[in-house]
Amino acid sequence: MTYQPPAPSALSAMLDTVKFDACGLIAAIAQQHDTGEVLMIAWMTREALQETLETGRVCYFSRSRKKLWRKGETSGQIQYLTEARLDCDADAVLLLVNQIGVACHTGRRSCFYRAFRPEGLVELMKPEIDPNALYGKKA
Amino acid sequence: MTYQPPAPSALSAMLDTVKFDACGLIAAIAQQHDTGEVLMIAWMTREALQETLETGRVCYFSRSRKKLWRKGETSGQIQYLTEARLDCDADAVLLLVNQIGVACHTGRRSCFYRAFRPEGLVELMKPEIDPNALYGKKA
Repeated sequence: MTYQPPAPSALSAMLDTVKFDACGLIAAIAQQHDTGEVLMIAWMTREALQETLETGRVCYFSRSRKKLWRKGETSGQIQYLTEARLDCDADAVLLLVNQIGVACHTGRRSCFYRAFRPEGLVELMKPEIDPNALYGKKA
Repeated sequence: MTYQPPAPSALSAMLDTVKFDACGLIAAIAQQHDTGEVLMIAWMTREALQETLETGRVCYFSRSRKKLWRKGETSGQIQYLTEARLDCDADAVLLLVNQIGVACHTGRRSCFYRAFRPEGLVELMKPEIDPNALYGKKA
């Protein structure tokens, strides 16, 4: 499935439908389009969602750094958009993506790598990439 | 996969790991455990997460009604927990569930039923149940 960006007029109308919260944000869930694996959750401003829909490359808004966060711009772990979906309340989006490499800053494929189990939190997956390699630090 | 609730001491330690925001909330994503379909996103307080983990039946916190929201208590559309997972920042959970009936208050299986398409928002699925039937109103 190749992503097709919207026409400018359709894009503007769709963005007007989205209900950003008092901080101008919506929640965005990224799911690998073919395996169904939920990779991460992050946040988007209108500007981030617009850029994502225009370019087909996922751009979030970093609440800690207070700026646009083009996923993979530092780590190379880019998310290519397959389809974006809006929920019933228009305040969350589901991004079907093709995740290059890993989604998590710890080097794991998914950020949801710990399970609540009878004995406590259990790690379900190990890092596939050394985080130092992802962010250009020397080990 | 049958859900196994944690031992009380393990539960308490796990809840202490979770980072609730300034409003005492975390985001919770519900995913159908066998098909991988992302059903909805909602919010949980510590109390809601504790009840969910203890009972194996998903309980959110309704931000609009400002109280615990036992999914399906009015509609009958219960979510049984298969596994709960915590993300890397410990501020979001992924709930693998068995959704009875439909997740969305519109009567659709998933809340993410609209896609951003080149021509505008497109509905991907129709209601499976009349919302009036879900909430006990006469048509």
